[in-house]
Amino acid sequence: MTGVAKDTQHDRSGEGVRTLTAADIAEVCAGELRGDPTASVTAVAPLYRAGRGDLTFLAAARYVPLLAERSPGILLVSPELAEVPGSPLARIVVARPQEALLELLPRLYGAPRRQSGIHETARLGRGATLGSDAAIGPYAVLGDGVMIGERVTIGAHVVVGDGVSIGDDSLLHPHVTVYAGATLGRRVIAHSGARIGSDGYGYVFSGGAHRKIPHVGRCLIRDDVEIGANTTIDRGSIDDTVIGEGTKIDNLVQIGHNVVVGKLCLIMSQVGLAGSTRVGDGCILAGQVGVSGHLEIGDGARLGAQAGVFGDVPAGETWSGYPARPHRESLRASAALFKLAGMVKRIERLIAERE
Amino acid sequence: MTGVAKDTQHDRSGEGVRTLTAADIAEVCAGELRGDPTASVTAVAPLYRAGRGDLTFLAAARYVPLLAERSPGILLVSPELAEVPGSPLARIVVARPQEALLELLPRLYGAPRRQSGIHETARLGRGATLGSDAAIGPYAVLGDGVMIGERVTIGAHVVVGDGVSIGDDSLLHPHVTVYAGATLGRRVIAHSGARIGSDGYGYVFSGGAHRKIPHVGRCLIRDDVEIGANTTIDRGSIDDTVIGEGTKIDNLVQIGHNVVVGKLCLIMSQVGLAGSTRVGDGCILAGQVGVSGHLEIGDGARLGAQAGVFGDVPAGETWSGYPARPHRESLRASAALFKLAGMVKRIERLIAERE
Amino acid sequence: MTGVAKDTQHDRSGEGVRTLTAADIAEVCAGELRGDPTASVTAVAPLYRAGRGDLTFLAAARYVPLLAERSPGILLVSPELAEVPGSPLARIVVARPQEALLELLPRLYGAPRRQSGIHETARLGRGATLGSDAAIGPYAVLGDGVMIGERVTIGAHVVVGDGVSIGDDSLLHPHVTVYAGATLGRRVIAHSGARIGSDGYGYVFSGGAHRKIPHVGRCLIRDDVEIGANTTIDRGSIDDTVIGEGTKIDNLVQIGHNVVVGKLCLIMSQVGLAGSTRVGDGCILAGQVGVSGHLEIGDGARLGAQAGVFGDVPAGETWSGYPARPHRESLRASAALFKLAGMVKRIERLIAERE
Repeated sequence: MTGVAKDTQHDRSGEGVRTLTAADIAEVCAGELRGDPTASVTAVAPLYRAGRGDLTFLAAARYVPLLAERSPGILLVSPELAEVPGSPLARIVVARPQEALLELLPRLYGAPRRQSGIHETARLGRGATLGSDAAIGPYAVLGDGVMIGERVTIGAHVVVGDGVSIGDDSLLHPHVTVYAGATLGRRVIAHSGARIGSDGYGYVFSGGAHRKIPHVGRCLIRDDVEIGANTTIDRGSIDDTVIGEGTKIDNLVQIGHNVVVGKLCLIMSQVGLAGSTRVGDGCILAGQVGVSGHLEIGDGARLGAQAGVFGDVPAGETWSGYPARPHRESLRASAALFKLAGMVKRIERLIAERE
Repeated sequence: MTGVAKDTQHDRSGEGVRTLTAADIAEVCAGELRGDPTASVTAVAPLYRAGRGDLTFLAAARYVPLLAERSPGILLVSPELAEVPGSPLARIVVARPQEALLELLPRLYGAPRRQSGIHETARLGRGATLGSDAAIGPYAVLGDGVMIGERVTIGAHVVVGDGVSIGDDSLLHPHVTVYAGATLGRRVIAHSGARIGSDGYGYVFSGGAHRKIPHVGRCLIRDDVEIGANTTIDRGSIDDTVIGEGTKIDNLVQIGHNVVVGKLCLIMSQVGLAGSTRVGDGCILAGQVGVSGHLEIGDGARLGAQAGVFGDVPAGETWSGYPARPHRESLRASAALFKLAGMVKRIERLIAERE
Repeated sequence: MTGVAKDTQHDRSGEGVRTLTAADIAEVCAGELRGDPTASVTAVAPLYRAGRGDLTFLAAARYVPLLAERSPGILLVSPELAEVPGSPLARIVVARPQEALLELLPRLYGAPRRQSGIHETARLGRGATLGSDAAIGPYAVLGDGVMIGERVTIGAHVVVGDGVSIGDDSLLHPHVTVYAGATLGRRVIAHSGARIGSDGYGYVFSGGAHRKIPHVGRCLIRDDVEIGANTTIDRGSIDDTVIGEGTKIDNLVQIGHNVVVGKLCLIMSQVGLAGSTRVGDGCILAGQVGVSGHLEIGDGARLGAQAGVFGDVPAGETWSGYPARPHRESLRASAALFKLAGMVKRIERLIAERE
């Protein structure tokens, strides 16, 4: 096998295949159908590689030439481009084609196909209990007293510590580790390599050494939380680490011991939250933000990318920069800096003249 | 199993359970005992969820109402709150209740229970040797010539490359990878997903491509080092990468090839040390610090969170900011910036008038 | 086994051992041979631990005393130090000893020894195909329809999703995860813990919840890409995520959905690229750089360590700082800031006098 196919079509073998007709789609997105109402698609693809079985979209004039080169099945198109040349089997005219497509995605792509049951190579500890229709993948290792809810999927190589409970409909991708002392709610998704409930970073210096403080707090992941790949969430030292309902955490994020994150937050990639910090509900932390320990981030606060936060942030405010300040102040400060940098010599002259 | 228990009590199945009486505790922390000296506890819990079997503490007036709601076993309490209402079986009055609790933790929580022996699914390479009482977990894969010390614990799914040696009493959590060429000292703890001794990032551009420089240096982890979850430590290119005795590394830290870190350092989450940099003894690097390559960080230096270090840092100094400078200068500079931002127009007017 | 050997010589059991004589080496690097032309070495070591079987180098006067203490096999030495005291079996005088050593490394260290074949514990899905001489390690799990090229090495515990194809001569270190929907080219190297093709971070807020956007785009890793330990690369949402030929990615890097990285880029540790950003060919992104979403980084651009990029960067330019600006401007601004910080009071006085 020398010629490994490059850029093969997206493989659907891992997902349940569904079909939508042009008539279905027009109805769902309240669009105007032009062409064959029975034309059908089973996948979504960008215009540059869309084929007869694909739903795609056209929303900007600069992509018009691509349409002439391709023969997509069904095209979502904005009103002003509705008549451009091309040969899709059907066009559906909607105000915002890309948004319509995102709305259609879940109708076309079901949950990944899953096979319930315990793989013969999976290892379950004493007293572990499994809900109905749970799926435990190859080489998964579940500790003593683990409780797995209904329809939970445990991927290959997942390791779950003693006494952990995982709520209904949760999905742990391959290579996740859940330490003893953690509890996951329902519909939690953890991506590959996520480490949940690891020991926090706590030492006391005595006798010429950093002595480890045993970590005995819990790590509580509430319902509908998603945890990105290779993200780490420490357990509490005495108190608990808590991730609130519906909060979504991206890849490579670090959440320290005793941190409490509220509901419905968005925590983007590579953010770091130091120990004992509290983040309110509905906060948005952009990529690479760092928040020092023992701080309060109020409900609905937003932190700009790379912000370095060394003090409390009031509810509803947007802060950015290093050290973080209200976003307008930060913008004004960096604009001022670049202006002033061009004036240093003249300022020095003014001062010299006065003195 | 629809109702997965939420927030169950911390499970102790993974740890050896010990018991302390109020009399024991009063003696250990030199506190004043009030109540039943035979009252006993087997766990520590925060006040908001402490029960009869738990040791807890009260150190701030705002938590007094919580005490009325709970019935803890034993309460560590500060002198000024010693008489507040509540029904613990015993109170122990100490100056600093939280510190006393941290001191008591190791007495209550022993090392995790471990079962020595080689799990039937573990794979050992040719010539691998194991010290007495070592424990090798399910699906662990140890290469040829691996040397494992006494009482070492190798977690589930750990992969150890050929020729690696791991000193007595070390603990590798699940999913750790140790590449060939690495040596771990005694009492090393590596958390889940740590990658020790991976190839460094080194290429030579020639013939229109980045050609990989083979990495043949070692990766030496000294005694009493702790390595956080998903942290990566590269092996040396020709020289060695070395982490000194008693240094503690948090989660998601990157340590490049040929880096030498001294003894008893604290390296917090998401720090990055570029290749060939040397960090002295007793340094503290706060979260998200980045240090460029080929630099010297002197003994006892401290780097503030998110500092971007592009030059050597003298011993004993505290630096911060981007680009990092002595901490006082950085503070002064950012304070000045926010002041000047409010004065730009007036400065421009002054300059215009003069010219 | 109490006495675990510390700092043992680098173990070569994982690599094919080769031998070079002094005569060979002198020829390869066009150096002047002094001493025994038949002296031979099988390894490279730094001077401070070089023995008779090792090739080493001496390029700076301050390391001269080390040479007297050691008895290396062959010494690469600069002309001005050619005569310093010491007893290597042979000296080879070259202008740049360290560069010569890097050039010699691949001649001495072959590719790691590998055993082709499928380990008895590896699991292959239905319809998986393997090229000749492929090696599948212990506990590897390959999904349905996976296509593995010739001479591919799949390390222990690697998990490959359904329908993934991996090109000839690629090497996946232990614990790599490749999600369904990803395609790897030829000669790709992925280090331990790399996550390739995980779901991107995309939600639509509706009905009081962040609803997950299904990710159906691909993740295309082109030929000759290297991916560092614990790095995460998301698949596209509808479009594809693409890493161009010959690009080298360091540890703990995050690459978001729909990101397109060109050819021959160097992306250093802990960099984060937010969704839909495009990076041209031959770019260099230093450690901890963050780039916001939907930006264009032109061909050959360079971004300094920790740069926070919030706008497009033109081809060929070097930018740095937060927010990132052309490097000269950034340097000027930070120099100006530290100057101005010392002048704030005098500037205030000037303004007060005028007003």
